[in-house]
Amino acid sequence: MTETRHIAIVCPGGPITHDLAAKTANVAAARFGDAVELHFHDQCFAHAGHFAGIDAARSAAFLEVANDPKVDAVWFGRGGYGACRLDESLFAKLNEHARAKTYFGYSDNGFLLARLYRKKIGNLVHGPIPTDLNREGGEEAIARALSWLAPGDSAGVEPTATTGNPCVAFNITVLAHLAGTNWMPDLTGHIVMLEDVGEYLYATDRAMFSIMGDKSMHSAAGIMLGRLSEVPENDRPFGSSDEELVKYWCARAGVPYLGRADIGHDAQNKIVPFGVTRAA
Amino acid sequence: MTETRHIAIVCPGGPITHDLAAKTANVAAARFGDAVELHFHDQCFAHAGHFAGIDAARSAAFLEVANDPKVDAVWFGRGGYGACRLDESLFAKLNEHARAKTYFGYSDNGFLLARLYRKKIGNLVHGPIPTDLNREGGEEAIARALSWLAPGDSAGVEPTATTGNPCVAFNITVLAHLAGTNWMPDLTGHIVMLEDVGEYLYATDRAMFSIMGDKSMHSAAGIMLGRLSEVPENDRPFGSSDEELVKYWCARAGVPYLGRADIGHDAQNKIVPFGVTRAA
Repeated sequence: MTETRHIAIVCPGGPITHDLAAKTANVAAARFGDAVELHFHDQCFAHAGHFAGIDAARSAAFLEVANDPKVDAVWFGRGGYGACRLDESLFAKLNEHARAKTYFGYSDNGFLLARLYRKKIGNLVHGPIPTDLNREGGEEAIARALSWLAPGDSAGVEPTATTGNPCVAFNITVLAHLAGTNWMPDLTGHIVMLEDVGEYLYATDRAMFSIMGDKSMHSAAGIMLGRLSEVPENDRPFGSSDEELVKYWCARAGVPYLGRADIGHDAQNKIVPFGVTRAA
Repeated sequence: MTETRHIAIVCPGGPITHDLAAKTANVAAARFGDAVELHFHDQCFAHAGHFAGIDAARSAAFLEVANDPKVDAVWFGRGGYGACRLDESLFAKLNEHARAKTYFGYSDNGFLLARLYRKKIGNLVHGPIPTDLNREGGEEAIARALSWLAPGDSAGVEPTATTGNPCVAFNITVLAHLAGTNWMPDLTGHIVMLEDVGEYLYATDRAMFSIMGDKSMHSAAGIMLGRLSEVPENDRPFGSSDEELVKYWCARAGVPYLGRADIGHDAQNKIVPFGVTRAA
């Protein structure tokens, strides 16, 4: 008999609705029964302007579930924007339970995953989150995440992330803003998978300037491009494809371009555990 | 009798039209007569996807006018996007004439002004550019720039920039992408004036995270906020004003917030010479 995995959900950026929480819990119950139990922290439903509660409230909720010995994994309910505003002081308060825990999310959550990875706290994982349930095929995305979080099924892991090479996955805009800050992890030797949504190609190009300007990126093993979705039409065509522009910046920085990754802001978004993934 | 000042125009990002060049030359002739002569480089009118010619062409045009002893000042015809794509190798090719020259522009041009300032090449100036002629009141903006470029009139200079303190001015999105890269100048001791256009407040907030994460910003004398114009409505209000969010990030980084600056993507945009401005 499998022991129940307790998964706490908090929102370091924007809030979710009670309705989404209920639907997510229904998927978990229908597909995984007793193998998983979801605990939606009240902070998920708080509102403070753009954010799911003020910085102090989001920081406190994250710290609470991270330090809780009864919680096996922290799942971020939503991205949006706001994880980079969490209190600097919270990271020193994370205890031994926080250090042994899994943190799972993507997009804006990447700010927090990055900071934890830099500080070697916990197991950091890029993958689908409850708000993905709003996408077409979103239930499969959620099931993929829960399947990894609950019985530790590795079927949903991005193929390259199972090759024994250290990997990370980030949203391009998020990584561009992390670059050069003290939230940026050392990506030496890593395969860096990138994806984005809703950005003009010129903005993605500019973000790649910033990412490739970060010193640790120059010693990355290489870059893989996930999907850039919902790219808006500009007043004139950019003149090269998304893959061409990523190759361009890789060439400028002397970093290998390693091909496409199976990640993106969509229901097919695969799981990328940060670092080296042990065989299941 | 004043000697004619020769001003070369190139476009490190997007192109301009022949019509705009003609209108700009008319303003110069009508207002400044023989005091100024504008030389629009053919590269201004080139097209390569998003850009005014390919990177090599934009780099070559800039290098040509920068190194030309007959050119007194280089004026950027347009911002847009692309200055950060200029060849890395061009900076080592700038000669003694390039080092004595004025470079004048703003917005995306800030990438290039930053790189030159970092390398202590030339006199770098934030101020209006030919495309501002398309704005309401744009002729006054252009005249302000030419008045500074031609007889060296300091009437259009931002008031704080005349106080003897080292200043710089940047677009927030541009500076966020410069932060942490080897194009970022050392802003220790500087008053840093910031402005932006067309960005969601959450995106500006995220950009401030990146800017304040740059180490040299922590020893800046302080930050002044220019105008954030054309801020799009988000699906929910951000919850604080533009000035509140800049103050927030200043407080987090322990950098003084020094009030409003008279700069922005508008016809009132004042001139900010980088560094210490000598009294006229």
